[in-house]
Amino acid sequence: MPTGFHYSRRVQFSETDLAGIAHFSAYFRFMEEAEHALWRAAGLSIGAAETTGGWPRVAAAFDYKSPLRFEEEFDVTVSIAEITRRSIRYGFTVTRGDTLVGTGTMTAVCTKKEDGQLRAVDLPADVIGRLRAAAGDPPSSGS
Amino acid sequence: MPTGFHYSRRVQFSETDLAGIAHFSAYFRFMEEAEHALWRAAGLSIGAAETTGGWPRVAAAFDYKSPLRFEEEFDVTVSIAEITRRSIRYGFTVTRGDTLVGTGTMTAVCTKKEDGQLRAVDLPADVIGRLRAAAGDPPSSGS
Amino acid sequence: MPTGFHYSRRVQFSETDLAGIAHFSAYFRFMEEAEHALWRAAGLSIGAAETTGGWPRVAAAFDYKSPLRFEEEFDVTVSIAEITRRSIRYGFTVTRGDTLVGTGTMTAVCTKKEDGQLRAVDLPADVIGRLRAAAGDPPSSGS
Amino acid sequence: MPTGFHYSRRVQFSETDLAGIAHFSAYFRFMEEAEHALWRAAGLSIGAAETTGGWPRVAAAFDYKSPLRFEEEFDVTVSIAEITRRSIRYGFTVTRGDTLVGTGTMTAVCTKKEDGQLRAVDLPADVIGRLRAAAGDPPSSGS
Repeated sequence: MPTGFHYSRRVQFSETDLAGIAHFSAYFRFMEEAEHALWRAAGLSIGAAETTGGWPRVAAAFDYKSPLRFEEEFDVTVSIAEITRRSIRYGFTVTRGDTLVGTGTMTAVCTKKEDGQLRAVDLPADVIGRLRAAAGDPPSSGS
Repeated sequence: MPTGFHYSRRVQFSETDLAGIAHFSAYFRFMEEAEHALWRAAGLSIGAAETTGGWPRVAAAFDYKSPLRFEEEFDVTVSIAEITRRSIRYGFTVTRGDTLVGTGTMTAVCTKKEDGQLRAVDLPADVIGRLRAAAGDPPSSGS
Repeated sequence: MPTGFHYSRRVQFSETDLAGIAHFSAYFRFMEEAEHALWRAAGLSIGAAETTGGWPRVAAAFDYKSPLRFEEEFDVTVSIAEITRRSIRYGFTVTRGDTLVGTGTMTAVCTKKEDGQLRAVDLPADVIGRLRAAAGDPPSSGS
Repeated sequence: MPTGFHYSRRVQFSETDLAGIAHFSAYFRFMEEAEHALWRAAGLSIGAAETTGGWPRVAAAFDYKSPLRFEEEFDVTVSIAEITRRSIRYGFTVTRGDTLVGTGTMTAVCTKKEDGQLRAVDLPADVIGRLRAAAGDPPSSGS
């Protein structure tokens, strides 16, 4: 199993489509659920952040390797792929047992609401530290 | 075709499930879309209302008669089934050509935000008048 | 907590709407997830049934008492409200701690595929027995 | 407005989230709806294809530039970005009036069902020709 924070789930009936598999758009919800579970494991809530600005996505992508079917259990592993001054890029690996279901990424920017507008701001240092710890990252040297 | 305001749509792929038909929960979105189209036709927006309180649902129901499949076009007819001092009950009939797909109802309550809490308030008279007109209702006598 | 089979879940971000609460259509997916968890607890899968006919819904309804917000945990209790020759009506109670979120019902009909058409058939006796047992119902006398 | 096939839509209430904007996963459904509208414009249906194999996605991505809000109308432009022997990559540009909402891509592979398994097969020449024509592509030389 890949390194990182683990989130487990089962495919629900409403997530399948007429091809009999989980709809391709469902994987973006799976990634987000795993991201938010990581935040909770880090003692944070992205919901609280929403009132003061939030973390809008700037990019999301998924590569599909093997389908998921109704009631199958799968695991989403989240890791922190890259941190810049104002953004986090998460990496995701979805597996079902030993089978690779696919891999994805999501990039979110830290924002503050000012005069009704969202403005990108520097990532809070403690948020980074907590997320890294919850994702099982080694602490970066010198920080 | 039943009397009322008409909203037309096509079943999208993501709305189907592994049984090959539109998922039963999709009909509640279909009803809401028709309700909001009625509001727009009445020169209103339920979105603007949300900032000051909004119209939370207190009840929703649907009876399924015949399934909808991918890419099928269907029609949702909205009528105003009942108006009380603080609530509207909409009636919905979903048809595909001459086939009855099902019928439903939704009841929404008019609320105002006060100290962060939603409180039920009397329906604004002009909202009722506009919705009735857009739904093709005869004006009620004496109003 | 009400009597019946219990299914627990958390509200996901994608299930909220601009009013800041779980969208009213999400509760129909919550009920279905609880129903399918009951089937699994009974050693059954509604997915397998779909290939030979399945259990289309004929009615679904929900009465909303108190909203659910992002990340809140809630409990869905499923009970078997009524069994007729060819249909099951489930009753649902959604709670968040001591707060009643709402109550709902769903009625599904047992069908078989014949010549590409779904035809209502009698409920298999063992399915009823297993669902009743998993829902904690007292066995009906004489069965 | 960008070149390609145009599909227009309005943001529905159920597609918004507590941040007050269309949820980031909704854009993948917007892209798929536009793709299927392109297929219909080409006289084809991807639904019919599903019974014999279908076009599973192998990759999907979206870059977000500006949010969409409830009831806003937007336009999705689809073009055919690349065709290989067995896959189509679509390019998507989402705009709201003069505002760029974002851009995305989706890659689908042509498959046939053989002994219950999906196997990648060569794209049917007439499908390519029809999609290119509907997307407003200049016919490729020599075809």
